[in-house]
Amino acid sequence: MKRIRAALLVVAVLPSLAFSQQVSDPIRLYRQANEYRLLSDFMELLKLPNVASDTENIWLNARYIMAEMNERGLKPRLLEAADKKVPPVVYGEWITPGATKTVIFYAHYDGQPTNPKDWTGSEPWHPVLRSASLEKGGTDLPLPNPSTKIDPEWRIYARSASDDKAGVFAILSAFDAIKATGIKPTVNIKFFFEGEEEAGSSNLKEILEKNKELLRADAFIVCDGPVHPSGQKQVVFGVRGDVNVDLTVYGAKRPLHSGHYGNWSPNPAMTLARLLASMKDAAGNITVKGWADDVEPFGQAELRAMSEAPQFDDELKQQLGIAFTEGGGKSLLERISQPSLNINGFKSGDVGEFARNVIPTTANAVLDLRLVKGNDVTRQIAKLKKHIESQGFYVIDRDPTDAERLKYPSIAKFTQRDGGYNAQRTKMDLPVSIAVINAVQKTSTQPIVRMPSLGGSLPLSIIADTLNQPTITVPIANHDNNQHAENENIRIQNLWDGIETFASLMTMNFK
Amino acid sequence: MKRIRAALLVVAVLPSLAFSQQVSDPIRLYRQANEYRLLSDFMELLKLPNVASDTENIWLNARYIMAEMNERGLKPRLLEAADKKVPPVVYGEWITPGATKTVIFYAHYDGQPTNPKDWTGSEPWHPVLRSASLEKGGTDLPLPNPSTKIDPEWRIYARSASDDKAGVFAILSAFDAIKATGIKPTVNIKFFFEGEEEAGSSNLKEILEKNKELLRADAFIVCDGPVHPSGQKQVVFGVRGDVNVDLTVYGAKRPLHSGHYGNWSPNPAMTLARLLASMKDAAGNITVKGWADDVEPFGQAELRAMSEAPQFDDELKQQLGIAFTEGGGKSLLERISQPSLNINGFKSGDVGEFARNVIPTTANAVLDLRLVKGNDVTRQIAKLKKHIESQGFYVIDRDPTDAERLKYPSIAKFTQRDGGYNAQRTKMDLPVSIAVINAVQKTSTQPIVRMPSLGGSLPLSIIADTLNQPTITVPIANHDNNQHAENENIRIQNLWDGIETFASLMTMNFK
Repeated sequence: MKRIRAALLVVAVLPSLAFSQQVSDPIRLYRQANEYRLLSDFMELLKLPNVASDTENIWLNARYIMAEMNERGLKPRLLEAADKKVPPVVYGEWITPGATKTVIFYAHYDGQPTNPKDWTGSEPWHPVLRSASLEKGGTDLPLPNPSTKIDPEWRIYARSASDDKAGVFAILSAFDAIKATGIKPTVNIKFFFEGEEEAGSSNLKEILEKNKELLRADAFIVCDGPVHPSGQKQVVFGVRGDVNVDLTVYGAKRPLHSGHYGNWSPNPAMTLARLLASMKDAAGNITVKGWADDVEPFGQAELRAMSEAPQFDDELKQQLGIAFTEGGGKSLLERISQPSLNINGFKSGDVGEFARNVIPTTANAVLDLRLVKGNDVTRQIAKLKKHIESQGFYVIDRDPTDAERLKYPSIAKFTQRDGGYNAQRTKMDLPVSIAVINAVQKTSTQPIVRMPSLGGSLPLSIIADTLNQPTITVPIANHDNNQHAENENIRIQNLWDGIETFASLMTMNFK
Repeated sequence: MKRIRAALLVVAVLPSLAFSQQVSDPIRLYRQANEYRLLSDFMELLKLPNVASDTENIWLNARYIMAEMNERGLKPRLLEAADKKVPPVVYGEWITPGATKTVIFYAHYDGQPTNPKDWTGSEPWHPVLRSASLEKGGTDLPLPNPSTKIDPEWRIYARSASDDKAGVFAILSAFDAIKATGIKPTVNIKFFFEGEEEAGSSNLKEILEKNKELLRADAFIVCDGPVHPSGQKQVVFGVRGDVNVDLTVYGAKRPLHSGHYGNWSPNPAMTLARLLASMKDAAGNITVKGWADDVEPFGQAELRAMSEAPQFDDELKQQLGIAFTEGGGKSLLERISQPSLNINGFKSGDVGEFARNVIPTTANAVLDLRLVKGNDVTRQIAKLKKHIESQGFYVIDRDPTDAERLKYPSIAKFTQRDGGYNAQRTKMDLPVSIAVINAVQKTSTQPIVRMPSLGGSLPLSIIADTLNQPTITVPIANHDNNQHAENENIRIQNLWDGIETFASLMTMNFK
């Protein structure tokens, strides 16, 4: 993402003619001529550690991106919260003479926390290039040089390679491409790069409120998440809400020898296992009372789009190596249209080399609840709390006192993590929705997938409600990108496609 | 445990007269005169890291103890396994002229593995002295000097402070005491200090077989485990068997974003929770078919002894801060007379700061199965495996192949850890049993507790079967010693009592 060098702007001899019917597209020619530089610049960005709570480094990311935007003449500035530790939004803009419409392009530059020792053969912030995905036997490649022929099936492994520095990269590179090729944008462009999305966007509302005038626009287009598992591009009109819960259950006050006290003094690991097991039936259906009672049904346009989406479940099961799916055979698309309950992790005592013959004192779990349109964070949390109570637990939001331990047979500490938010959906038949669909469709020979809602979450309800703008998501990452987990990666062709997609959106026909 | 210095052998002015009716006991006078040295020497021993798999350090322990025994004229030698990495037994002997009976005194010098970061304010192999237990607000004390008045309620915090270097210390110090006070032992004494008890005594049988002649004796007396929770001394005629199992269940082959795939692709944490929950009912009774079918009932002497044991459950519940016990209200004594199933630990994904919105790929648990007389390790393992199969799992002893993942809806890897062994019980009405009861009773003004079996485990079945000797256990540690866990500790009075107990056993009236 270094400043475009004039010498590189000349469209060079084409190295590939894979999609010959579109090869005249100047954006693609531009990219083909600049692959080495694009890749190198992107890998530089990935070297910056970007966990939102790592204040020093996250600000380093913000200043780096600001410098990049400054070189492009985008008049960048940092939109900050009152608390100076909060990662700032990096904002910039490009006014198109004569344009009457304004579009905000959003991505986030922070990434999920990760334990470096969980990664395979590389580290989160030391990007490596591999010949294919690790699962398909990909091997490490040397760093490319200007004469390397870059295979679009290669992958870059690094934290945020897909989620969501790929978005920052695709948006800025698309802008470079249209400027370099002399194509005129059709809209005023505002750039909005958030820095604490993976930490729950706790301060986003404050920043939006403070900058309402600056952020006036006709649509808010978000680059995040994966394309359809079939590999087809997709436009997504909604996202699920999300909230996390920490759960702790208790055994005796001190760790006990399992031989002398086991099967008499209660084991919190077993207590937690029973509690978690009570939350779903054998088919994987959630048994918490009223969990989906307030779900708002889809309209006709949404149901039609879903019915036309490619069926990919069988291939996905093959890829993932699973013979069973939760929900009694319902499709992935149906399942992600419902509120979810997922265990992020649990722990009690130790396994492996540190395991020993004790009864642990506590057992912990972190749950991840996804919400759909109609659900509400406060109501969903209350339903879960009530469920835990119905299982015989005394539910509190702190460790129990000695008196409570002696009074209640089962005690659960239940706390909501910061940053929960509701789902958001934009209607698929609005003029802006149709314009976005058409712009993305123009970049693909395959019919693109229109998705009423993504399974994943973004704080779009905060944006839509505060700015009163429709939000539409245009993802670019490969679906097998290990987003949020160890070994996150991006397939290079997805980066290239992303540039074309966003260049097309910057020149869309928006009435 | 440094060599007894002649100058210290003189019985000094008594610092305490707590048990005036026994104060003439020369063993007690000896201890009172030597408390500072005894404590200092014991803390030296605790500084040696002693996890059996830590080969270099565990051998250091063996050589250290051997040197101590050499200074006492006990002709020590190391009894080794063929595999030179196996921690050796430290053996020594003292022939009493005219004695016709021989007793082996056993303790183990290795300790359970532990994660130093789990300890509170100290580290496993940096012993600290505290004014009381941590739970009762104990604070760190400076190291004592020769003029320090040592409070018997103080505690030493360190790995193996109680389990089981306290045993090594009490046995050797008891021998020092009878030598120093000129009391003549009534039996030939053999010292047998094992070095891999906490790792399952995998090589004990080999060492016993090789040294059958050397180890010929009339009884095998074991110092391990805690005294009765009431604080009364106890003699234990049996131990439970023990075997550990590792369990892994599987989700998709790669970690998945919980939003895009959650509640469709199976979550192994939930799968494991359901499986574990199936192993016990709500009252905590084990539901594995036939779990206790082969249990051998107690005889009359054992039932009588159990009925005379102090009732301590209510006080224990207070101490532990628990309002519920497993087993539908049955007493701790009844519960530890049955085969158990305990979760040592489980883990899937992460909790706390590393938690993130993913579906983990696996979930792991380590189970600890205690066996009573009549149970058999192989049969018990087979029952549990069958139970897991009855829950719909395809059970294997390795990770599944891709083909297996696609064929079986639920897969469990189930492996038995090395070192499982059966329970052992010695009849309470044998002459040696009565002699041991009488010898321990002589050291206490309270009636001692006779326990048919301890809840904990020792490889006594291996010893009894290989050497054809009765085994009897005489524990000395305080019951709240955090044995096997972080913050292991010993109450100093228990050390002092242990010296008296073993001195009495070395001079017992054994017909």
